[in-house]
Formats: sequence, C-alpha cells, structure tokens
Amino acid sequence: MQHTLVTLVEDRPGVLNRVASLFRRRGFNIESLTVGHSEIPGVSRMTMVIDSTPQNIERLIQYLYKLVNVIKVDDLTHETTMMRNLAMIKVSANEKRRMEIMQLVEIFRARIVDVANDSLIIEITGAEDKIESFVDVLRPFGIIEMVRTGVIAMARGSSAAMSMVNQEASLAA
Amino acid sequence: MQHTLVTLVEDRPGVLNRVASLFRRRGFNIESLTVGHSEIPGVSRMTMVIDSTPQNIERLIQYLYKLVNVIKVDDLTHETTMMRNLAMIKVSANEKRRMEIMQLVEIFRARIVDVANDSLIIEITGAEDKIESFVDVLRPFGIIEMVRTGVIAMARGSSAAMSMVNQEASLAA
Repeated sequence: MQHTLVTLVEDRPGVLNRVASLFRRRGFNIESLTVGHSEIPGVSRMTMVIDSTPQNIERLIQYLYKLVNVIKVDDLTHETTMMRNLAMIKVSANEKRRMEIMQLVEIFRARIVDVANDSLIIEITGAEDKIESFVDVLRPFGIIEMVRTGVIAMARGSSAAMSMVNQEASLAA
Repeated sequence: MQHTLVTLVEDRPGVLNRVASLFRRRGFNIESLTVGHSEIPGVSRMTMVIDSTPQNIERLIQYLYKLVNVIKVDDLTHETTMMRNLAMIKVSANEKRRMEIMQLVEIFRARIVDVANDSLIIEITGAEDKIESFVDVLRPFGIIEMVRTGVIAMARGSSAAMSMVNQEASLAA
C-alpha cells in the first residue's frame, strides 16, 4: 500500500544523505522523495511516497525520528491530501501540429513555456495520473525530453503539519 | 557560482543514496536536488543546482560518471535554460480577505487548489525568485504551511539532454 509521509528536517549538509541511507539500509522502496523549502527558514520539508505495510511504516517513522536533524514526521496516508507534481515536456511541433498541441494544453490546463521552430516546452502540474495521461496524448507528436519533480503533498483544510509553527504564523499575521 | 547539472540515472534502488553520499563525501554544497521520471521508462532525471567553481564542477561530473547507474551528465549552466519549481502554500483566509488573496493569485498566475472555511491552498510554478516574491506578498495574511519541490531544468530549443533518445523519439513520431 502507498503511504505518504511528510518530514520536516533542519536544512543541514548530509541530511538528505542520512535519509537516503536509511531507506537503503532498511530496504524501503521509495516511490518518490522530494525535498524543498518549508514555511520556516532553515527547515526543509520532504515528501516521501513509500510502498509498504502499515507496520513497516510505523517502524520507518521511528527510524526517521532517530536521525539527526529530523524535527517532525507526519503520516498523511489517511488524510484528504493534495498531491501534486510538476513536469516540463519538450515535444516536437512544427507549425502545422502546434495548434493541435495547444488544444491539448488547454484541455489539461497545462501551459506552454517555450516555443522554438520545431518544438514546444509545456509545463503541467497535477496528480501523477493526470500527468501520465497528458504524456500519453503527447507521445504521438514525439516527446524529445521530459523532466519531472517528485510528488509534494499537503493535507486539505486549515491544519498544518506542524501546529506550533501554525500558531506562530497566525500570531505574526 | 551556481551550476545546473542534469543527470540521467537508471531507476534502481540505492542510486539516490549513492549520489547523496558522493555530494556529502566530496563536500559539495547542493542548493537543490530533484529526482523524477524522464521520457525513458526506467530512467530517472536528476536536476542538481550546486554552488561551486567551474573546476570543481568538472571534477564532480567525472565523479558522477564513475557511479553505478549513472547514464549521462549534462551541464546546463551556460545554456539558456527553463528553471522551474512548484510550491503549495496554505494561507489563512477568512471570507473578507479571500478576495484580496485571489487578486494576488491572478497577478502571479498561480492557482487556488483547495478552499476551506478559513484557509486556501495555492499552487504556483516558476523560477525561484518568482515564488519567493509570491510568498512575501502572502506572508502578511499568515502562511500556515508551505511545501516546495526542488528545481527542475531544461534547455530551451529543440535539442535534448540525450540526443540518442531524441532520435528515437523523432523516429517514433
């Protein structure tokens, strides 16, 4: 079963290395691991999608807490969650085919971010399956190159992964 | 100086671990490391933003090539490149302030992806500085939570990071 964990870590050298080693050593199968800034300066937020049993995920959370620089781990698996990733796709497109592609871009609420003589770069955000479908409809045109981020996740509604920080933010507002 | 490397790797367990260890061991300062699917099944594409000297980047490329499962490394530093990342930002918003926020969302070409009674989740894509500016204008409303991907990069124009694959794709079209 796929689990989504959100981990807040201090933004220090070696922290990604430690997390990646943990997964490797304990034999966890990471579907996706994405690291970026959080709302707190000096704190990064990792979104992890892992295929495992609930028991093993429990154990993984304990292992994560034992790592240096790990502040908080949240399991979003059973929450209503927004899952998103971003792709840039470079697709062959001469003048004749450009219109066809632009229609698809419209339908998928994607965006054209670069136009060359015989190609386009398209940006799309969404859940994994939406991006997969878009890639499928573009494939016949000739996909030259694609780059994707991993998945980022956030629980719907107004609660935050870190409620302490939440309060600070509200006070500051 | 900031360098942008694109590395194609076989999608095997431990490859992220090996890359992260290399950076750690050799003392490279990664600003951003993002991993996701590429256009080739079984091949992931890593975008790395590293602050270092051109000499050290040369050396890093050689180290990367020595790692198992590394297929190709491209230095996009001196190319005209699209750099993008994705953020989801949960911001406090009662009915009164929602309109104000929606105007900002419009200006920044962001999107509202979730609405709760007293908060919104906004999705935005763009270069690092655009996202930073957006976060700055949202801050007074109260940022509850933020999650960001790292940077993904792609050279403009119709050439691809892997020209062999490029040809295959064109033939298939």
